[in-house]
Amino acid sequence: MDNESILITGPEILDAGGIRRGSVLIEDNRIADVSNTLSPGDADTVIDGTGKLLIPGLVNTHTHLSMTLFRGIADDLPLDRWLNDHIWPAEARLNGDYCYAGALLGCIEMIRSGTTSFNDMYFYMDHVARAVEEAGLRCVISHGMIDLGDTEKMTAELRESRRIIKECHGMADDRIRVALGPHSPYTCSEELLKETAALADKNDLMIHIHVSETENEVSEVSRSHGMTPVEYLDEVGVLGPRTVAAHCVWLKDWEIDILAERDVKVSHNPSSNMKLASGVSPVARLLQRGVNVSLGTDGAASNNNLDMFQEMKTASLLQKVNLEDPTALPAMDVFSMATLNGARALGIDAGLIAPGKLADIVILNTRRPHLTPWRNPPSHTVYSASGADVDTVICDGRILLRDGELEVLEEKYVMELAEAAAAELTG
Amino acid sequence: MDNESILITGPEILDAGGIRRGSVLIEDNRIADVSNTLSPGDADTVIDGTGKLLIPGLVNTHTHLSMTLFRGIADDLPLDRWLNDHIWPAEARLNGDYCYAGALLGCIEMIRSGTTSFNDMYFYMDHVARAVEEAGLRCVISHGMIDLGDTEKMTAELRESRRIIKECHGMADDRIRVALGPHSPYTCSEELLKETAALADKNDLMIHIHVSETENEVSEVSRSHGMTPVEYLDEVGVLGPRTVAAHCVWLKDWEIDILAERDVKVSHNPSSNMKLASGVSPVARLLQRGVNVSLGTDGAASNNNLDMFQEMKTASLLQKVNLEDPTALPAMDVFSMATLNGARALGIDAGLIAPGKLADIVILNTRRPHLTPWRNPPSHTVYSASGADVDTVICDGRILLRDGELEVLEEKYVMELAEAAAAELTG
Ligand SMILES: [Zn+2]
Ligand SMILES: [Zn+2]
Repeated sequence: MDNESILITGPEILDAGGIRRGSVLIEDNRIADVSNTLSPGDADTVIDGTGKLLIPGLVNTHTHLSMTLFRGIADDLPLDRWLNDHIWPAEARLNGDYCYAGALLGCIEMIRSGTTSFNDMYFYMDHVARAVEEAGLRCVISHGMIDLGDTEKMTAELRESRRIIKECHGMADDRIRVALGPHSPYTCSEELLKETAALADKNDLMIHIHVSETENEVSEVSRSHGMTPVEYLDEVGVLGPRTVAAHCVWLKDWEIDILAERDVKVSHNPSSNMKLASGVSPVARLLQRGVNVSLGTDGAASNNNLDMFQEMKTASLLQKVNLEDPTALPAMDVFSMATLNGARALGIDAGLIAPGKLADIVILNTRRPHLTPWRNPPSHTVYSASGADVDTVICDGRILLRDGELEVLEEKYVMELAEAAAAELTG
Repeated sequence: MDNESILITGPEILDAGGIRRGSVLIEDNRIADVSNTLSPGDADTVIDGTGKLLIPGLVNTHTHLSMTLFRGIADDLPLDRWLNDHIWPAEARLNGDYCYAGALLGCIEMIRSGTTSFNDMYFYMDHVARAVEEAGLRCVISHGMIDLGDTEKMTAELRESRRIIKECHGMADDRIRVALGPHSPYTCSEELLKETAALADKNDLMIHIHVSETENEVSEVSRSHGMTPVEYLDEVGVLGPRTVAAHCVWLKDWEIDILAERDVKVSHNPSSNMKLASGVSPVARLLQRGVNVSLGTDGAASNNNLDMFQEMKTASLLQKVNLEDPTALPAMDVFSMATLNGARALGIDAGLIAPGKLADIVILNTRRPHLTPWRNPPSHTVYSASGADVDTVICDGRILLRDGELEVLEEKYVMELAEAAAAELTG
């Protein structure tokens, strides 16, 4: 399928720029043309877009993909018991094969629900990269670094990050890029954070970090450093336009100013924040100040799926009820967060349906009872649709899903592999 | 398919009583047996339940089904503009044919997402009943009565309610029952509420009413009557074990005591309450006091779908984040709300998979990437699944959906009918 041309005829098109109708021509891995005058003869492959909605592939800016293996092992628990009794013991038994299996499963789940790019922080990331390469998706990956102040551990973590950069950065026709992943200001030493900042600067790399997810960690950081987490991260040089800060639930007003000034990319994870009872991120305020806020599902152990359609709806509804304002975070805004803002966060030249953009495209079947009457594409996409309405997925100009059938990976085999890995890890 | 027997072999079974494995035999419209010794020879129709999860049909205890026609006409608006500029003008143009079309569409959406029973309040309810009869679903319907203190209007509303009772109560082999539907304490006169209570008592009918959805209406009722809405409704005789009170967002502590004492059935509508920014119902507290709380989607104009799986997840996540407690409303509790508590609210002898219960059954395909690894049925059902995982639906012993194919109604025709009706109503 690579290096060929694909024409999608006559769908409605929705992106952050608005709604229109037109055929979309893909040549190689880019959108070549969007117009009403394209005819089927213009392409090697023709997809009938009648009665369909064409949108940019969704971008999930905070995941721990291999955690699909931990789906449902622990729910409805306090955070410390969730981590100490379930997640950490299971993670201690991880290896590259397990992470590969979990990542393959996660890739299939993302393809089926319309996600084409994601930002992943976890372990054994070379194995994750292998899964993503086979799946045909696009991603930024980072080795999650935790040193808890142990210098030896810090050296090992930085060494592993360097190894992943060397092995995986630019892999799969540049669909895979590597970032630095210091886990958080409360699990990383000041030295590790500073080394990270220097390494990112030197090699022009992104940074992916958890910031102010819970009230507890904010107190802890403030006690240890005499500064709020965002002030502290700014001081050690971690904040900049290539930094994705996940969660950002507990922010002082002046921290929002810092995030805006440094052009930090915030990843909002509403389902995870609700399920773990972390709190509600001030998303509407962040957007008002011009911060680029995108959406993430977080790991499947705290969500418990990777459906970005669900995440869009939840993000909007949560802001509305929390601000007691039904006009908060309207459909178009949250749709832009899941597409254009996500692409911007990851430095990907996509997120819009326009000539020259990377051909990361999702097609929805709109002729479904729960999408009828069809009259308001942003509303239906955000409030009525689910990942199951995704019909066709194209990433980097390659068809990954067509009419609901996977064109990559062996779904049954991957599910068996994941079941077996999960049984060994947690059974 | 009626009056025959159906055997579902070997699924996992989940209901409010727990998880087990066993085959389920349906005879006529009831569950005849649940056991591991049933063999395919025992039934006219055999459904292979291997790799499937069998649950009671979900019960949606607060809907306005025909409002599917208004899906997406108005979102992200303040409540008064939503009602005054969009919903009420559109409703003024309704007629029986439109309501029939919207109800047919809603029935298909509910069947496809695993709902077998619902509690509907709206207009032209004889037309809604006709749609439900054709769809094969089970419901309680009520004419929504609003008099705003106008005595003539009151008489007309009561007359219409009596007409619907006479024409529809017990229709479709008793799958359709009629309740009285005084819209709310702020849109109905005291006399109308008292007449309703008397009529319900005399004819042994349910009452379906909106209670304390918004903070504004609570102030209004308190100002007009010198009592909170629940106190007022208790005084006029509307509260009892056959009353379904929708929303119950703004409750004083002593109002919860009254609801518990009167055994009122509360219908919680989390998506609608979030989308309209109404507030968060104290569901965990209501359950602690022993109130029977079930789940509803409300109308499609304020949700914007009828997917009870989404409603389960949203209900749990909203309580957790609101109470800052990740252990709040765990998966099994919210699953019980959507099944057993729903059946109790509507006085339906279903909601459990056990011999003698009405055969209202839903089968999920568990071999899906987002449900893998499969290890915790309540968790996967509530936190990972969506209505699109529903494979087979049986209501009153009749197969309505099998392997994703509708066995009732013409889906394409119904969608066209609904599109046309919507265009005429709001175009
Ligand atoms: Zn995370
Ligand atoms: Zn309602």
